[in-house]
Amino acid sequence: MNNDILSYVTELGRAARAASRVLANLCADAKNAVLNATADALEREIDYLTAENTRDLAAARAAGLSPALIDRLTLTPERIRATAAGVRTVATLPDPVGRVLDQRTRPSGITITKVRVPIGVIAIIYEARPNVTIDAASLCLKSGNAVILRGGSEALHSNAALARLFQQALVQNKLPAAAVQFVDTPDRTAVDALLRMEQYVDLVIPRGGKSLIRKVAETSRIPVLKHYEGICHTYIAKDADIDKAIKVCLNAKVQRPGVCNAMETLLIDSAIAPRIIPPLFAAFRAAHVELRGCPRVKAIDPNVRDATEEDWRTEYLDLILSVKIVDGVDEAIAFINEYGSHHSDAIITESPHIGAHFLQHVDSATVYVNASTRFTDGGEFGMGCEMGISTDKLHARGPVGLEELTTYKYMIRGDGSIRT
Amino acid sequence: MNNDILSYVTELGRAARAASRVLANLCADAKNAVLNATADALEREIDYLTAENTRDLAAARAAGLSPALIDRLTLTPERIRATAAGVRTVATLPDPVGRVLDQRTRPSGITITKVRVPIGVIAIIYEARPNVTIDAASLCLKSGNAVILRGGSEALHSNAALARLFQQALVQNKLPAAAVQFVDTPDRTAVDALLRMEQYVDLVIPRGGKSLIRKVAETSRIPVLKHYEGICHTYIAKDADIDKAIKVCLNAKVQRPGVCNAMETLLIDSAIAPRIIPPLFAAFRAAHVELRGCPRVKAIDPNVRDATEEDWRTEYLDLILSVKIVDGVDEAIAFINEYGSHHSDAIITESPHIGAHFLQHVDSATVYVNASTRFTDGGEFGMGCEMGISTDKLHARGPVGLEELTTYKYMIRGDGSIRT
Repeated sequence: MNNDILSYVTELGRAARAASRVLANLCADAKNAVLNATADALEREIDYLTAENTRDLAAARAAGLSPALIDRLTLTPERIRATAAGVRTVATLPDPVGRVLDQRTRPSGITITKVRVPIGVIAIIYEARPNVTIDAASLCLKSGNAVILRGGSEALHSNAALARLFQQALVQNKLPAAAVQFVDTPDRTAVDALLRMEQYVDLVIPRGGKSLIRKVAETSRIPVLKHYEGICHTYIAKDADIDKAIKVCLNAKVQRPGVCNAMETLLIDSAIAPRIIPPLFAAFRAAHVELRGCPRVKAIDPNVRDATEEDWRTEYLDLILSVKIVDGVDEAIAFINEYGSHHSDAIITESPHIGAHFLQHVDSATVYVNASTRFTDGGEFGMGCEMGISTDKLHARGPVGLEELTTYKYMIRGDGSIRT
Repeated sequence: MNNDILSYVTELGRAARAASRVLANLCADAKNAVLNATADALEREIDYLTAENTRDLAAARAAGLSPALIDRLTLTPERIRATAAGVRTVATLPDPVGRVLDQRTRPSGITITKVRVPIGVIAIIYEARPNVTIDAASLCLKSGNAVILRGGSEALHSNAALARLFQQALVQNKLPAAAVQFVDTPDRTAVDALLRMEQYVDLVIPRGGKSLIRKVAETSRIPVLKHYEGICHTYIAKDADIDKAIKVCLNAKVQRPGVCNAMETLLIDSAIAPRIIPPLFAAFRAAHVELRGCPRVKAIDPNVRDATEEDWRTEYLDLILSVKIVDGVDEAIAFINEYGSHHSDAIITESPHIGAHFLQHVDSATVYVNASTRFTDGGEFGMGCEMGISTDKLHARGPVGLEELTTYKYMIRGDGSIRT
């Protein structure tokens, strides 16, 4: 590893740790003042931000990046204003730090208070969208954590400019600029150095495609909060209300197909398949959804493509749906636990008993009865915002909001208390 | 990697995952029946267990293992009975699974219930003490998790015998034996295979020395809950009550010096040092504690050894104490945050203000005012038992009991609810 890069990243880590000690003890007003000043700066500096973004866009076009990638990379005045509005929203949310989670006095006489505290230093490793720079920094600041941001190299100028505005807002408010730091080099070894810095970084959150997340998870010595793919299912039980089923399935698939909580696989009970498939598939086709089915589905509707084994394991993020007929709720549960990504899965049923059985046995972060998987979202859950959706089981599962970016400590008071 | 070992460990993982689906849905009575049957079997099979243990002990003596290691390896009838009593205690504890942590109905009409559920499959990698086999299996079973146990090779026969009794109790109660599995080979590559089995193992808990934990943390692709060392401090503030300070410091150092929550470093405020050092050091010497001090300590008591930089970073686990004089609470806090292991640290003070400042700023799992660090323990905290003390900040911090061996999922009910 390049020694200059190593010492640069080490210095970021050391400064972040020092800043985290200051952040952990700030009141909500002090943090909110920085957030509002950042929002002001974003709105004021639209010309500067779009100019820096133009440099990234020119390089991206010259490198022949795809139109989808270039769209994600683009900062428009509207997008900058929306980002600023998001920062103001974070400022209005309750401060999670300092909340008493539990308190008890023990027979030994000591009083134990379990208190929510920041995690410390969080590293975020992300891809094309520059708005992640501001979103992630806002959530980390509000939850009292210092953050080290490492964005995609294609967004280097945009991200650096956004991080600079955030740092100026910190300094204006007499807080350490190192509360929000940006890895200002495209050198890839900087990520390797970051992922080994256990002494300075407490948590790594990769945000992006599956290969990025896998690489981070395999390299990191620091705990990683993973946001893997969402291979989300809906199972239409034999007693489903057909109108509800069509409405919910259509919403889960087409309302926003490119996101992790969209449905990718539909399971239909064999007892209801002949009745529901004709109107349901007509609705999907009207919404331009390509259908791929198992042989039993094709027996009812020959105009679907063959679904392969690969289809059941694919997150399409597109207007494509794989459909399988199953015999009963237990086959549906076993299939979801085997092929799903433990993100969001739903059942449509009128039976409270079958619904409860499904909720109990499906091993996913969020499990639904008679609702669209699209509800898996920090905003819809009432968290006000989110860093993403954790597909891990440890620390945080499902939407990651401000509380999930904290840990706890035990504060214990005695009066010369000793253990006997 | 040896293919036989790989397929053996893979099969353990597959079976554990299948068993975990059964365990996750058991009522407390079913789990307690297994625990009580295991305790019965332990008491009934003392002769068998001590015979198997004798095989390990003979090999250990032939290999020239240290007396301390041989002591840890030894199963006596008393130790077996104590282990059985521990299992019965776990049976009496409340079942953490199924507890509703939060419930809310959102404006969209969905009702979100956050419910405690098991983690799934836990791998425990441990060293000499065979009782960990039973302790860890009991805690995992009660929290609804399947467990894969990998003990030290020197305890292979003892551990296998203990695991066999637990499996018999499972089978007697018509539950899958794979709920508790033991890696029955001393081949070291089995651990490497285990640590890469992300699809079957959800959490790894290493229990043992620092080098074992470091190796597991560096190798594992699966989240690791670390139980690193305890370099615990007590700081005697300028306004400390001298009698309380002596009582608490003596307890923290000598009541059980070989454990992670014992005090290793004592910080004394310069304003109280001349008054407290003579009686305090006399008390330590009467308790056979070797003292090592900074130059300012030596200026008051020349009969202490020099403390080196290395001493401030050492977990002695012995009757040795390093002592440093500091100027004020903030120097004490900075020293603890820099040199400590974020485990358990205490202040002795009569000032509620100084005490609160210390609790707030020391970045450790458990922070004390006027109490011994020795209280950091699942039993003392009212958890009834513990798997160990986490020095991680993610997922669980401090004592790890039944609740800390669980995660949560969101169960959501709608009525044809869609996102708009």
